[in-house]
Amino acid sequence: MSLSPALRYLQQHHDRFLAELEAFLRIPSVSTTPRHKEDMAHAANWVADNLRAIGAREVAVYPTAGHPVVYGAFAAAQPQAPTILIYGHYDVQPPDPLEAWESPPFEPAVRGERLYARGATDMKGQVMASLKAIEAAVHGGLPVNVKCLIEGEEEIGSPDLADFIAEHREMLAADVCLNPDAGMLGPEWPTITYALRGLAYFELRVYGPAHDLHSGVYGGVVHNPAQAIAELLAGMHDEHGRVTLPGFYDKVRPLSPEERAALQQLPFDPEAALLAQTGVPALWGEPEYTPVERLGARPTLEINGLYSGFTEAGAKTIIPAYAMAKISCRLVPDQDPDEVAEQLRAYLQARAPRTIRWELDVMTGAPPAMTDIYTPAVQALAQAMEATWGTPPLYRREGGSIPVVGQMQQILGLDSVLTGFGLPDSNIHAPDENLHLPTWRKGMEALVRFFYRFSDTV
Amino acid sequence: MSLSPALRYLQQHHDRFLAELEAFLRIPSVSTTPRHKEDMAHAANWVADNLRAIGAREVAVYPTAGHPVVYGAFAAAQPQAPTILIYGHYDVQPPDPLEAWESPPFEPAVRGERLYARGATDMKGQVMASLKAIEAAVHGGLPVNVKCLIEGEEEIGSPDLADFIAEHREMLAADVCLNPDAGMLGPEWPTITYALRGLAYFELRVYGPAHDLHSGVYGGVVHNPAQAIAELLAGMHDEHGRVTLPGFYDKVRPLSPEERAALQQLPFDPEAALLAQTGVPALWGEPEYTPVERLGARPTLEINGLYSGFTEAGAKTIIPAYAMAKISCRLVPDQDPDEVAEQLRAYLQARAPRTIRWELDVMTGAPPAMTDIYTPAVQALAQAMEATWGTPPLYRREGGSIPVVGQMQQILGLDSVLTGFGLPDSNIHAPDENLHLPTWRKGMEALVRFFYRFSDTV
Repeated sequence: MSLSPALRYLQQHHDRFLAELEAFLRIPSVSTTPRHKEDMAHAANWVADNLRAIGAREVAVYPTAGHPVVYGAFAAAQPQAPTILIYGHYDVQPPDPLEAWESPPFEPAVRGERLYARGATDMKGQVMASLKAIEAAVHGGLPVNVKCLIEGEEEIGSPDLADFIAEHREMLAADVCLNPDAGMLGPEWPTITYALRGLAYFELRVYGPAHDLHSGVYGGVVHNPAQAIAELLAGMHDEHGRVTLPGFYDKVRPLSPEERAALQQLPFDPEAALLAQTGVPALWGEPEYTPVERLGARPTLEINGLYSGFTEAGAKTIIPAYAMAKISCRLVPDQDPDEVAEQLRAYLQARAPRTIRWELDVMTGAPPAMTDIYTPAVQALAQAMEATWGTPPLYRREGGSIPVVGQMQQILGLDSVLTGFGLPDSNIHAPDENLHLPTWRKGMEALVRFFYRFSDTV
Repeated sequence: MSLSPALRYLQQHHDRFLAELEAFLRIPSVSTTPRHKEDMAHAANWVADNLRAIGAREVAVYPTAGHPVVYGAFAAAQPQAPTILIYGHYDVQPPDPLEAWESPPFEPAVRGERLYARGATDMKGQVMASLKAIEAAVHGGLPVNVKCLIEGEEEIGSPDLADFIAEHREMLAADVCLNPDAGMLGPEWPTITYALRGLAYFELRVYGPAHDLHSGVYGGVVHNPAQAIAELLAGMHDEHGRVTLPGFYDKVRPLSPEERAALQQLPFDPEAALLAQTGVPALWGEPEYTPVERLGARPTLEINGLYSGFTEAGAKTIIPAYAMAKISCRLVPDQDPDEVAEQLRAYLQARAPRTIRWELDVMTGAPPAMTDIYTPAVQALAQAMEATWGTPPLYRREGGSIPVVGQMQQILGLDSVLTGFGLPDSNIHAPDENLHLPTWRKGMEALVRFFYRFSDTV
């Protein structure tokens, strides 16, 4: 049972690992639209086959009300070893707008040091880094028990995962959960994420006339639903970028002076980096918080989609019958998704005029989460990262949401160690999503080191 | 040369006239999208063939930069007869949303007293009423010279018509223009329209990040373009429904007390009728004007379409890269479309924040128009309508825009007599567009009577 042969194995088999990742990326496993149902099953079976090929026992594909969950377990070379539960997801975001991709999203293409494909970073690349680190560690004599739980519904809010975890408590028992669905702040800055934002997702529909109207014949007596939804949406922020839903900030945990100071300790200028990554002409948001604080420690309300009336090329002179907005809030401790849904409903009840009707669908929710950084698992990962990159990791709050982290805590009592090897310019959820291959390679090395390090510390 | 045989001919051939209209309606002549280019040519040739079949001379299909113009002329049975130029258009609005139609938009279907199809009322039904009235009058001995100008770009703002008219001044010379592209206030209320609103149509695009961003990773530091466009659009009206573009009302001609009084003389309750026709929960608009005044004599600003980000079923957690709104203003005398474009640009320059970029396309414009109701042609039409319906016509301001009316006035010096046989519930520009067949039949009779009456008065 030894680290060196495992690390050597990683180097020797790297080309094959990359080829396997490309095969995985070719499956268009988009969980949100029903037309990819078969691709989802294909992707689940592909993961199960890979688990079997690298020596997992008890491999199974569990059906759920939605997309299947894949499970596989590996036994440590020696008794009394600790157990790591690795979480991953095989589903990806929709690839649209397709025309904005330089190469097709499900035809992986290497350009320079990067591999371009939907899911390359979020998170098929991370799932494969984990599986290939296990494969290498198995070759060196696996120092820990490893269980893999790879779901297919992360990008739609993991609606069936909590039930699955609750029904398989014993099977999933572990000492810690490793969740590589977070990212790094830069290729030279290994990162451990200690807080996540939660999510509350809504669809708002505003109805006006019974059908589209001629804007000449009826313009002036009907409240245009597109205008009405614009008025409602515009009122959801004040002029300082603060969300106006009643009670929205009541449960937001204030940042301590110590944490504010720690969050400023970055090896780069976050404002310049954010401008470069996003391409916006100027940053935006609550002026009394820094950009890093706003991203990790402050809640948001975003419009994710907007539709009304005629949107093709050309002109059509109608008053649309209805308008639709997709709205989501990122939440921080101790906000609650159900309470935010009630706050949005209260806002609409107070503000919607009687000239229109409205409907609100509450689509998905996830609580925010925070982890203690002084646990053996976090410290073992920190040491593994320092050994790999030559620098200790940064600790950060992550702006995204990973519902499973809260579920693992609530149902299994398991803390999650959050890491991952995507970069800020990996374009996740966007066209030209990509994986920085040298970082991916280091990530696999760090995971192998983590397995051995964690086995020593427990 | 006599009215009775012409009216008898109308009755005898009605079934064939309806069959011809249905054939015309089967051609999907949607002018705004390039994919119907061939259907547009087909519709133009169909109209030319019908003109030839009913005895027109000099029939021609004139190509333009866009869709062709059809022309045909008929000589009066006796010399020194006056000349009527009949205007029509063979193009129709797009039929979407398709799923909202009870029967397919280009498969005409009679249900009860109505014929359902895109263009049934706007305005293939009116074009056919005119052609079949000519056919009947030819049978009775045509009392007037008639010229027909049937264009294919009305629904996209008639961009090539002004040039065509200017290049064919002599060919189009006439005593008056009959334009049956207006409507009636109800099946028992023949209507003559004496004012039209103008139009100014725009596409506004708001750009934020270079590509869609993950709303967790970047939410809180980027001004969401969907939110920014909602803020800009919401600010275009004040809380009383008044348009806030700088100078928007400066040139609006005030309503005289006499005209306000005349506009109140309607044989029904306009508020109840508008609620029933539109299905909205409550009317909306400037409180100091009545609904009828707001529709005819006050300008508007409407959002005709709205798009940003993810609009399919399901959830996608992005900050969209851009947002788009189609915006149009209905204008009243003496507003000018070019000046309104400058007012919108000035509004955006003053209000758009530096956190986004914006672009404004000025797509089409038409001036508002008013006609003197004490001319021989208007009076002849009024008498023809009273003889047909047994009641004198109502005079109204029309909320819609017909660019050709201004062009006929400016280029040919021709006043337009505006009428038409569509009803408020004909659903023009909307799903289930329909034509009330008994009214259509009366309309043909009124046009035949108008030809004979006008020949007497001149």
